[in-house]
Amino acid sequence: VKVAALAGGVGGAKLLVGLQRVASDLTAVVNTGDDAVMYGVRVSPDVDIVTYWLAGIADRKRGWGLRDDTFHVVEALGKLGIENWFSLGDQDFATCLYRTQRLASGATLAETIDEVRTNLGVPVRILPMTNDAVATRIVTSDGRTLEFQEYFVKERCRPDVREVRFAGISEATPAPGVLAALENADKVVICPSNPLLSIGPILALPGVRGSLRNHPRVVAVSPIVKGAALKGPADRMLESMGYGASASAVARMYDDFLDAYVVDVSDPEEAEKVAATGIEVLSVDTLMIDDSASESVARAALS
Amino acid sequence: VKVAALAGGVGGAKLLVGLQRVASDLTAVVNTGDDAVMYGVRVSPDVDIVTYWLAGIADRKRGWGLRDDTFHVVEALGKLGIENWFSLGDQDFATCLYRTQRLASGATLAETIDEVRTNLGVPVRILPMTNDAVATRIVTSDGRTLEFQEYFVKERCRPDVREVRFAGISEATPAPGVLAALENADKVVICPSNPLLSIGPILALPGVRGSLRNHPRVVAVSPIVKGAALKGPADRMLESMGYGASASAVARMYDDFLDAYVVDVSDPEEAEKVAATGIEVLSVDTLMIDDSASESVARAALS
Repeated sequence: VKVAALAGGVGGAKLLVGLQRVASDLTAVVNTGDDAVMYGVRVSPDVDIVTYWLAGIADRKRGWGLRDDTFHVVEALGKLGIENWFSLGDQDFATCLYRTQRLASGATLAETIDEVRTNLGVPVRILPMTNDAVATRIVTSDGRTLEFQEYFVKERCRPDVREVRFAGISEATPAPGVLAALENADKVVICPSNPLLSIGPILALPGVRGSLRNHPRVVAVSPIVKGAALKGPADRMLESMGYGASASAVARMYDDFLDAYVVDVSDPEEAEKVAATGIEVLSVDTLMIDDSASESVARAALS
Repeated sequence: VKVAALAGGVGGAKLLVGLQRVASDLTAVVNTGDDAVMYGVRVSPDVDIVTYWLAGIADRKRGWGLRDDTFHVVEALGKLGIENWFSLGDQDFATCLYRTQRLASGATLAETIDEVRTNLGVPVRILPMTNDAVATRIVTSDGRTLEFQEYFVKERCRPDVREVRFAGISEATPAPGVLAALENADKVVICPSNPLLSIGPILALPGVRGSLRNHPRVVAVSPIVKGAALKGPADRMLESMGYGASASAVARMYDDFLDAYVVDVSDPEEAEKVAATGIEVLSVDTLMIDDSASESVARAALS
């Protein structure tokens, strides 16, 4: 079965690991709205998380970065007086430096991502949602506008979020292959990534949402279990932005294209609510505590 | 006593450690001809060696880089297919990245060096010979022209050298403070650094050699002991370029400005040869095996 999956950070990466085991052909379309230049290098956190997880070299406990990585560069920069709240491991730094130099020499972001994943032995095609500059910005309830990494890392998601903006999104185009991957997929999977921060930017790209509406088989896995996000600020954001923090609320955000929805087995009321809207619902254990758990969720999503 | 010293890499750094203990006021003028951009960052190897030695954080055994540094960034770049023959430690990388970003934001090289040495607690003023781009290039006996780091690191100084060129030198000016430091110094010390690769570029800068000729007290420490360089390719270069590999040959290269010369105690014939030309000669143990040995050589040079 030919699968295209929209993904952001860790939640997406975990499901992709399962999909990699089940799908005969898998293309991951990954959020780049949290890309930034840090310490002079282009970080692409969601893309790198996905790549490292699929390569089997991710720091699974921490969720981001590489297993057994060190932080000597960033620590040394701190000693030189550079603000170093953005943690970036030394090997991770090398990935970003590689990307930076390739971009400087004229490569597209997609090319650099493909080179890195190939070098790391990842058989799955990893596409950035776009080669263009899109910057996720957070408007807080107290009226500040923060760059995504300021909100996410520096302020540790503490501020209440009033609005999420994607600067540059209307001039951006999906990266080459993104729309084709969606159209040609037997099934499109929306990973259990943050619907506002990770899936949101991809859906906001011109052409993507329309392509999903036209697709006969789009299935999402709920990122919310019993009102809580498994990781990150999705639940609090869904509340503060008025969507409500529940599996069914996320399904509503996708209801113009959603054909099937995977809900955690511990959320039967949410499953019923979504089923009542005519969307096919599967209730399974969605906690992806290891690779075989990821595979089970992937099988459910593709069933 | 107010001292200005011209220095290159390890030999210069060792003597500077001694001079730092003896001089009341010390300015180091350091070669930048071996500066380059590596992995997207500006390396300034001689400046950094000197800074790390004076800060007491150098890897004394290896000579360059920082004690207990790791090489994770460069190793990871290698895994991504980047040529990584230029070893650069992770903390060392941070120094170079700091410099790169400050230069990009409009700082001069001298400013970045002053910031780093201040941050690392070095009380000695460290001046780059110039803020301008000067690139040492090596013409080999087989007719190739190599960038300095290609010759020095990639080819490990193996090629025979026919000629040393300093690209950009005639348009370069000494960094602010360099000529003043030389003029105002009670004594100018030429460190036992490679006379062709380390001292050569500084002397070739417009104004420097003339300033030394006018100075009443210029003393050099021989980098050659019993026909051999203590470190690096100076001896082989002096031979292949026709100067001869001896302490007296180096004194001859400096004879238009040299007032005194420190020769190793194991080289009495060389001492006599130089003394016969009217230059004051001191014979001492010039092997700087530790800081107190460096201090002894510094005391001799300033006596």
